Amino acid sequence: MHRARAASRTLRVASGDKRNAFLKHLGEALMKDRAVLLTANQEDVRAAEAAGVSKAMLDRLALNEKRIDDLVANAREVQALPDPVGAVSSTKVLASGLRVERRRVPLGVLLLIYEARPNATIEAAALAVKSGNAIVLRGGSEAAKTNRALSGVLQKALAAADLPADAATVLTDLSRDETIALLALSDDIDLAIPRGGPALIDTVKQNARMPVLAHGPGICHVFVDAGAELEQAADVAVNAKANRPATCNAAETLLVHSATAAAFLPMFGKRYMETGGELRACDESAAHFKKAGIAYKNATPEDYATEHLANILNVRIVGSLDDALAHIERYGTRHTEAILTSSIKNAERFCRDVDASCVLVNASTRLNDGFCLGYGAELGISTSKFHAFGPMGLEALTIEKNVAVGDGQTRR
Amino acid sequence: MHRARAASRTLRVASGDKRNAFLKHLGEALMKDRAVLLTANQEDVRAAEAAGVSKAMLDRLALNEKRIDDLVANAREVQALPDPVGAVSSTKVLASGLRVERRRVPLGVLLLIYEARPNATIEAAALAVKSGNAIVLRGGSEAAKTNRALSGVLQKALAAADLPADAATVLTDLSRDETIALLALSDDIDLAIPRGGPALIDTVKQNARMPVLAHGPGICHVFVDAGAELEQAADVAVNAKANRPATCNAAETLLVHSATAAAFLPMFGKRYMETGGELRACDESAAHFKKAGIAYKNATPEDYATEHLANILNVRIVGSLDDALAHIERYGTRHTEAILTSSIKNAERFCRDVDASCVLVNASTRLNDGFCLGYGAELGISTSKFHAFGPMGLEALTIEKNVAVGDGQTRR
Repeated sequence: MHRARAASRTLRVASGDKRNAFLKHLGEALMKDRAVLLTANQEDVRAAEAAGVSKAMLDRLALNEKRIDDLVANAREVQALPDPVGAVSSTKVLASGLRVERRRVPLGVLLLIYEARPNATIEAAALAVKSGNAIVLRGGSEAAKTNRALSGVLQKALAAADLPADAATVLTDLSRDETIALLALSDDIDLAIPRGGPALIDTVKQNARMPVLAHGPGICHVFVDAGAELEQAADVAVNAKANRPATCNAAETLLVHSATAAAFLPMFGKRYMETGGELRACDESAAHFKKAGIAYKNATPEDYATEHLANILNVRIVGSLDDALAHIERYGTRHTEAILTSSIKNAERFCRDVDASCVLVNASTRLNDGFCLGYGAELGISTSKFHAFGPMGLEALTIEKNVAVGDGQTRR
Repeated sequence: MHRARAASRTLRVASGDKRNAFLKHLGEALMKDRAVLLTANQEDVRAAEAAGVSKAMLDRLALNEKRIDDLVANAREVQALPDPVGAVSSTKVLASGLRVERRRVPLGVLLLIYEARPNATIEAAALAVKSGNAIVLRGGSEAAKTNRALSGVLQKALAAADLPADAATVLTDLSRDETIALLALSDDIDLAIPRGGPALIDTVKQNARMPVLAHGPGICHVFVDAGAELEQAADVAVNAKANRPATCNAAETLLVHSATAAAFLPMFGKRYMETGGELRACDESAAHFKKAGIAYKNATPEDYATEHLANILNVRIVGSLDDALAHIERYGTRHTEAILTSSIKNAERFCRDVDASCVLVNASTRLNDGFCLGYGAELGISTSKFHAFGPMGLEALTIEKNVAVGDGQTRR
């Protein structure tokens, strides 16, 4: 990994134009090598089918025309993002005359450890180079042939932009032990980013000797306050669960103020049922659903602690904003929480008290996403309150240093 | 540590007035309990003397009237700092109409692991509570009696401010194994901060299952460019080494451009010698010192890689800015680096290319400090490029969350 470190020194001082040229060439090389990529990917897919992997994994593994188009579009979007490197967030002139500014700089060498999603190879390399970092990409063995082909694409784009080949290193044949050895190289790697299931993230956290930026699970809530606009609240609540139920920012539990339950739940329940979802109701909300002829199951305490990753929604009636806050404090995972309310006071209290990477007022939890919050492409949502909290985009791959300009200032 | 976690929930939503009231009462309690503190400390000092600890450690351990005055002043200074909690760094309104702001929030529970410096107990508790965090303070056994007395002071100030007693927990009798067990409690503790020598920092880094914010060693450089203002450069270079030679932001090596060496070195050498320092010269600079009758030793390559922690300065002549940058890249520890120059171009190149938490132009390395850079009290200088890079003040003890306010926005 010494070569990745050396490449990171070149990238650290490479101009924004050069880093953007890489992204331009990356899009072009993806289009040019489309047939090669699809052929390599078909071999991986066939081998995975023969090995009997799950349908979900096959879906993640497969490239197709649409997915390559998406990668091309992603490279263009990252190219269009403002350059984070060298950005100055604040400048102040102190009484001493010293002018102090904070200037954003790359981290150095990133390590991505991921499973069978070959898209991640390109998406992560695009964000890394844009932010002036070298990256080492350790993909799953199921995607080895695809990743080798993608490595060719990355190398062409790096060469065309006159950037070092070691700026992006794709490792396709690493054993588990070799990967764990990689995680010990804190002198050569500045940040480890696991992307995948809880077991992968746990292995990386246990073995990494450098900082880890991970995407935590999301048990997200929507609280419908007394006095909420009911039509809007129903739209937002249905979207929060049913838009893409298996994502981390999908809601798992709908909390409804008791004062609004009778008016809200039958209307909401009918709309939600149209999405083909399943309700898991507390005793009190069950009575409302029963009366309205809406199907439901009874919620268990375990349901409240589960990331369903499916179109299943818990519904619980609470007596007050305090009760809603207490439920979220107990079951939430610091990911995404929303309040639907017409009260400024309650909105502000919710925003202040809820401990989550994104708190929303009158908007869907599904909007906690780099694009929807205006940050652009990202590598997931961090729920750890350190370095990055929320969408991990270009900023999470950089840090600010101090630059102080004086005219002879010394310390007394 | 469940009780510290519970206290952190109260602190997270406590008003700035309440947190400032704690600091006011802290200063008052320190003055009131002055005699008790000094008596307890004298017992610790006597026991340490009897145990034959080093003079340096005795100095760190001892409290006296002046040091208590400094702690009172520190509490007032922290009280006067702007409240970091709830501070909004940016607000933007997106095309969707969603208003997204980034709002600063506390981390939760901090753990300070430190050696025999009882001042740290108060300084760290002041910064923790100001930033809305609970703190667990694990001090060295040599300071146990002093820390118990300081715990009493903290408890009085917490009670007077109507904040929970568990907001600051002082642990005085923890064995090494118990401390390591504490470092495994990632559910209850959000951040570990070691303050002390390299062995302590290493133990914490190896065993902590939560993020660690540590103060790295400083091998700092001052580069005197061709065309620098020589009188000013000599002032700054002498200050960078001799102002307080044992600090982390003191310079270890002076790099001098060959074009300016003949004019600069004799003048600088005479001034530096007045501080009682010792020069370790490269062959080329040695010739200049010899000619000017200035005492020196010959520098070894090892000298360039050493944090002297004493009034010893390496001097090396370099042929160009590039050579200076290469020397810093090789020997620097990403701490503090300064260029003394009259060239805008060279200043900007140095600021961009040097990888350090603070890069200074025409100012002393000694200014990389929370107070001198305008950030206020801090817990040290981070040289890790993650979460905090540079002085670790109130901002390092917080993180930004996203708050998004809409009027029914959903995701397509």
